[in-house]
Amino acid sequence: MLADAKRTLTLSDLDTPCLVVDQTIMLRNVARMRSHLASLGVPLRVHLKTVKSLAAARHVMTSPTGPAVVSTLQEAEQFGDAGVRDILYAIGVTPNKLDRVAAIRARGIDLSVIVDSVAAAEAVAAKSRQISSPIPTLVEIDCDGHRAGVPSTDLRQLVAIATVLQRGGAELRGVLTHAGKSYSCVGMSALEAMAEQERNHAVACANALRQAELPVSTVSVGSTPTAAFSRNLEGVTEVRAGVFPFFDLFMTGLGVCSETDIALSVLTTVIGHQPDRGWILVDAGWMAMSRDRGTARQKVDQGYGLACDLMGRRYPDLIMVDAHQEQGILAVREGSSAKLPDLAIGDLVRILPNHACATGAQHDEYVVVQSSSDCIDARWPRFRGW
Amino acid sequence: MLADAKRTLTLSDLDTPCLVVDQTIMLRNVARMRSHLASLGVPLRVHLKTVKSLAAARHVMTSPTGPAVVSTLQEAEQFGDAGVRDILYAIGVTPNKLDRVAAIRARGIDLSVIVDSVAAAEAVAAKSRQISSPIPTLVEIDCDGHRAGVPSTDLRQLVAIATVLQRGGAELRGVLTHAGKSYSCVGMSALEAMAEQERNHAVACANALRQAELPVSTVSVGSTPTAAFSRNLEGVTEVRAGVFPFFDLFMTGLGVCSETDIALSVLTTVIGHQPDRGWILVDAGWMAMSRDRGTARQKVDQGYGLACDLMGRRYPDLIMVDAHQEQGILAVREGSSAKLPDLAIGDLVRILPNHACATGAQHDEYVVVQSSSDCIDARWPRFRGW
Repeated sequence: MLADAKRTLTLSDLDTPCLVVDQTIMLRNVARMRSHLASLGVPLRVHLKTVKSLAAARHVMTSPTGPAVVSTLQEAEQFGDAGVRDILYAIGVTPNKLDRVAAIRARGIDLSVIVDSVAAAEAVAAKSRQISSPIPTLVEIDCDGHRAGVPSTDLRQLVAIATVLQRGGAELRGVLTHAGKSYSCVGMSALEAMAEQERNHAVACANALRQAELPVSTVSVGSTPTAAFSRNLEGVTEVRAGVFPFFDLFMTGLGVCSETDIALSVLTTVIGHQPDRGWILVDAGWMAMSRDRGTARQKVDQGYGLACDLMGRRYPDLIMVDAHQEQGILAVREGSSAKLPDLAIGDLVRILPNHACATGAQHDEYVVVQSSSDCIDARWPRFRGW
Repeated sequence: MLADAKRTLTLSDLDTPCLVVDQTIMLRNVARMRSHLASLGVPLRVHLKTVKSLAAARHVMTSPTGPAVVSTLQEAEQFGDAGVRDILYAIGVTPNKLDRVAAIRARGIDLSVIVDSVAAAEAVAAKSRQISSPIPTLVEIDCDGHRAGVPSTDLRQLVAIATVLQRGGAELRGVLTHAGKSYSCVGMSALEAMAEQERNHAVACANALRQAELPVSTVSVGSTPTAAFSRNLEGVTEVRAGVFPFFDLFMTGLGVCSETDIALSVLTTVIGHQPDRGWILVDAGWMAMSRDRGTARQKVDQGYGLACDLMGRRYPDLIMVDAHQEQGILAVREGSSAKLPDLAIGDLVRILPNHACATGAQHDEYVVVQSSSDCIDARWPRFRGW
């Protein structure tokens, strides 16, 4: 019993399904992104919405105090409480969130916000005056028609918003853009072009504000694909990226990483077979994988994920072709001549996900292993909510 | 300040996004299903994977002690600890889960399991012998080629599995089937036919076991669509259903319910506009809605959900056409002549989901209101994990 208690736990000791991170791969991914941006001379502001874990964040940020970017105020509170001091909340802020923003700033955290309308800018300015403390604010620019932001061609609107902030009592910190369209660019030249488009629009907008004698200290760009494929960041002061520590099958489909760069997987147990249909059933369904089917729109549809053995070695063309709430169906990809592996009830399989952010969000912790090992080195709690 | 503290909280006081349940609608849905099954003389075993909440479960089960069905052992533990005594774990059990099954049974909970292979049956029998306590087990039948189970035509295999259980020391309790294909049946006649197919296969398999002199006390069928459209349940001893208390847009698309029967919604705040594209941006993205796009395969694609005002009144044809992690894009459905409503930054909207199970799983609590009211009556915590 004593020997048992002291034995290192392995993946085979876990209840399934659960979330596994290969730390060897993760640290390699982080080092590569840091080195790339260092070569371009621009600091990395890591988006912590992907990891949502204090323990994981320490490995992916460039320093324990940040800089970081978040997508919820709950993330700002959690990471702020853990010592991160420079946090950007990168979703358009609304009046009903400004009390929480002020409370976080009152704890000594340099939380900045973004706006893309005069109405939101007026609300931030009013709150700044009310608390007698200028809330640092960036104007969000739309560089590709993807989502939010002032159209980068609408300089009149851009200057109007910035003026409301600056004259109204907020702190105009600069501009921010996110080339979300990079998620539909495939291959090096398309990604390089999108990175340049993102940079170009952000810098042009920053210059327009400067010409209007408005202060711009921050020019923030980023997405994992454009961060990885940027070749010139002149005029940019920081790059944001989030999914790069883990990567996923969607990023593989874009050509941003290879399958062997994917650090995240879901560990699952074989629960049955339907031999007539060529199916192996496992206990990871969409609750464990998420409903994300991002690769369905790509050239190679990976189903709900790509199957690997316990040590992370891929089974040729074995994918999760369908998922129910707590059951997944593994089968050989259509058109492939690969053989269905001989897996028995109780055998363990690891599934690489479509989208690390979505799959991670379904779990409350990471089980940490190193490459080519099934020994559990650590468990990193995750949080969620708003 | 005192007046403020005593004031009833309303939806406008909440941080968004959050999950709202209209209890008036929920209780009406529950009463309708109970009344339908009572008219057929068969008890309802509610699937608690949808609600995942002790407080909500009390309103949907027919008694505080059950019967209930669950999709994870964590659900069995949580509901068992809360006093539910009759629990069926309806995912094929594996050897690595049997210690947990035994531990739950040792707490006085009548937890039953299902198997669809000789290998799994042997594992359950061996564990039963080891703990000197027969684990009640049903054999899962495949009635429609949808997922798991012994093909209902393979009576030899069915009898072999049941024999392993019965002779090996487990308790053979009966058969179970789930007409998952009902999720692609549209309209009354298709749903009625699928309900009859589900019943017919289950009863035939039960009779085959009886002819082999094997005991069958339970003949369990169900899915929300077949439960709602069953017309004859002769030979069936219980019906399982889960999503009926909440319903969702997917069920509406099948014709199982109407939009006004949907009790679940996500409350969200307007964060911006892209007038050139006819978009309203909100702070509920796929993290709040889930990535479930079940209606994409149906005649009416509801995007990531259908928008209502704060009181739950639907905006004509306003749907969430796209979702990012923490942002959703509302727009008028393609082809509709409806006008984009005039919503300002900070306004609140409620979004009806594609799939109640998936959307619910993204949240840690239900905020409870009554129909035509925005007053918060209760908050029901949800749990998750395995």
